[in-house]
Amino acid sequence: MYPPEIEKLINTLSRFPTVGPRTATRFAFYLLNLSDKERENVIEAISALSNISMCSLCYRSTEKEVCSICSDERRDKSTLCVVEQETDLTSIEKTKFYGGLYFIMGGTVSPLRKKDFDNVRGKELKERASQEEVKEVIIATNQNTEGESTALYIERVLKSCGVKVSRLGRGLPTGGELEYADEETLKSALKGRS
Amino acid sequence: MYPPEIEKLINTLSRFPTVGPRTATRFAFYLLNLSDKERENVIEAISALSNISMCSLCYRSTEKEVCSICSDERRDKSTLCVVEQETDLTSIEKTKFYGGLYFIMGGTVSPLRKKDFDNVRGKELKERASQEEVKEVIIATNQNTEGESTALYIERVLKSCGVKVSRLGRGLPTGGELEYADEETLKSALKGRS
Repeated sequence: MYPPEIEKLINTLSRFPTVGPRTATRFAFYLLNLSDKERENVIEAISALSNISMCSLCYRSTEKEVCSICSDERRDKSTLCVVEQETDLTSIEKTKFYGGLYFIMGGTVSPLRKKDFDNVRGKELKERASQEEVKEVIIATNQNTEGESTALYIERVLKSCGVKVSRLGRGLPTGGELEYADEETLKSALKGRS
Repeated sequence: MYPPEIEKLINTLSRFPTVGPRTATRFAFYLLNLSDKERENVIEAISALSNISMCSLCYRSTEKEVCSICSDERRDKSTLCVVEQETDLTSIEKTKFYGGLYFIMGGTVSPLRKKDFDNVRGKELKERASQEEVKEVIIATNQNTEGESTALYIERVLKSCGVKVSRLGRGLPTGGELEYADEETLKSALKGRS
């Protein structure tokens, strides 16, 4: 229906997360209707990503060898917070409550798909957590099936590292009402009472 | 929080239709996690758009001077269907019911913003509809506020062209039930009874 260039772009954009063929078509026509200059800006913004590398300690995106968090002298080097992805790290940083360092797993594992283990940084985490300064690892994966199985995997990886391992607290979210909380959340809230 | 390259990309992607900062962040990290080769493919797909031009008759995207619909000898050259944008044209083509030609306005006008008139192809439509072979113009704008005001604008533009002007039928959609139809739809269905 559309010229091959547009069909190809729709196809490419359909692979973006949460994007289906309909939204991809809207994006393609948005890009088509941009001026040459504006389209060049989009291309440049994407190209600039190749200047970005990963922090050699936490795997956060950075332009330096070691990122601004890992190289910050004021941060507590004895605690490592393990998250699934960089956006999770950002969420925790926004609380301004955590003063330790991070480690980004780069994904989740499923107990049913062994090959997932190659997609996350299990070996790298083991190595990092074995360094002398690390005393505690906080597992901060999501509270869903993938997050849970990833947490179990991380616990197994850390077994031989001799570090204290903890998990994020579970319970009612702020503003949460007992009437509307699901059973699992209430159970966690009871177990994790303080 | 993120390196400037990522912040800039998030900013650029936030301008895509229906995309907010959260989704733009997901897109940015999706692009960051692609291999250099895959990212190059995305860039090439966007760059290829500059090969695309617009049909000189209907303003549909095409690689030729006149698009495949406008140059199709079997199509009825006396009828012109005016749509807001190319995706609307595609929707009508999918019905395989319409055998005439098209004209893409390129946007909508609002009675409150006079400058919108420069963003749509009013002058070009007038010229096209004045050509001798054109006998009827079907206004196929959306059934919403912008579509309605654009339809009124198109009617005004066509006044002096001496062509028959019609509108898409309004009424219950296929599968629609009276119980759930809104008043305006029912009114249109009554007026447009056949």
